[in-house]
Amino acid sequence: MTAPTRGYTASKDQLAGRLRRIEGQVRGIERMVDDDRYCIDVLTQISAIQAALDKVALGLLDGHARHCMKEGAEAGRADEMAGEMMAAVGRLMKRG
Amino acid sequence: MTAPTRGYTASKDQLAGRLRRIEGQVRGIERMVDDDRYCIDVLTQISAIQAALDKVALGLLDGHARHCMKEGAEAGRADEMAGEMMAAVGRLMKRG
Amino acid sequence: MTAPTRGYTASKDQLAGRLRRIEGQVRGIERMVDDDRYCIDVLTQISAIQAALDKVALGLLDGHARHCMKEGAEAGRADEMAGEMMAAVGRLMKRG
Amino acid sequence: MTAPTRGYTASKDQLAGRLRRIEGQVRGIERMVDDDRYCIDVLTQISAIQAALDKVALGLLDGHARHCMKEGAEAGRADEMAGEMMAAVGRLMKRG
Repeated sequence: MTAPTRGYTASKDQLAGRLRRIEGQVRGIERMVDDDRYCIDVLTQISAIQAALDKVALGLLDGHARHCMKEGAEAGRADEMAGEMMAAVGRLMKRG
Repeated sequence: MTAPTRGYTASKDQLAGRLRRIEGQVRGIERMVDDDRYCIDVLTQISAIQAALDKVALGLLDGHARHCMKEGAEAGRADEMAGEMMAAVGRLMKRG
Repeated sequence: MTAPTRGYTASKDQLAGRLRRIEGQVRGIERMVDDDRYCIDVLTQISAIQAALDKVALGLLDGHARHCMKEGAEAGRADEMAGEMMAAVGRLMKRG
Repeated sequence: MTAPTRGYTASKDQLAGRLRRIEGQVRGIERMVDDDRYCIDVLTQISAIQAALDKVALGLLDGHARHCMKEGAEAGRADEMAGEMMAAVGRLMKRG
């Protein structure tokens, strides 16, 4: 059985690498808290993670729009998939 | 030598626990990508992490405002620290 | 000459009404400032306007995805339009 | 009876000017919709308004932290006011 092709399949290694780096950034914040580092410096690192996650999210949306929505359109599901993507964009804008 | 007291010192264990859970959520996304899960489901998890990070950031800001800014005010650094906190809020609003 | 059809053409009156209400909300904040109202109350109103603008933006994106991108796909411009839409989503997430 | 002094009192004219410009930007979007302008161009203008509102909000927060919170601290209301300010920051981060 083959794996399904997703919007991120072509850049899966790059995506995996970005997520590993974000995991490392979160661990870095855990160490900062363990070392009683200054609140504002911890907050700056949190903002950096948020920016990195936004970048990953935009990349996923882009792949989804280019690949999955094209497939969806061919399968007559364009409107359904547009609605689904907009719900995802809304959650990203409101952050959860 | 004693560790410096920070705005989060009183709730350091809770903060550390939250960060470990966020680290686990990031690893969960790495597995989802490894398993070729649907783009929209990955995006939903990213939004959940962003919401969890926002909650951590607000908690840090709150402790900073209550504890560090009080100390800062007593040390005549109220304005400097207000400026510093606003810069942090600005980065959180723009996400990095 | 006829007007171009946009993603929002079918709901243009509703969109115009929403924008007029947002304009009224901004004028409301101008009055609050003129009346020396409490900072936090002014900020609450700003958040309400931000939420209303986000709702308008999501509606525009949704119409664009359903209508314009379909047209674009038929004209062989699917990728170009996906990139353009993602740039718009990125600006909304970073807020300008 | 004198007007209460707020965090924005010293820069009230500048704030009022910014709000009038934002009101003008909203009216500009109303005209764009009336003229059936391209969805993406309307979205770009919405992002510009969000950025302008963020700037106003940060200015208000800054004045509040410098002026009102100092008064609050002197009146023994530092914690209460920090909580109130964090609630406002939370609404701005979630946008309403």
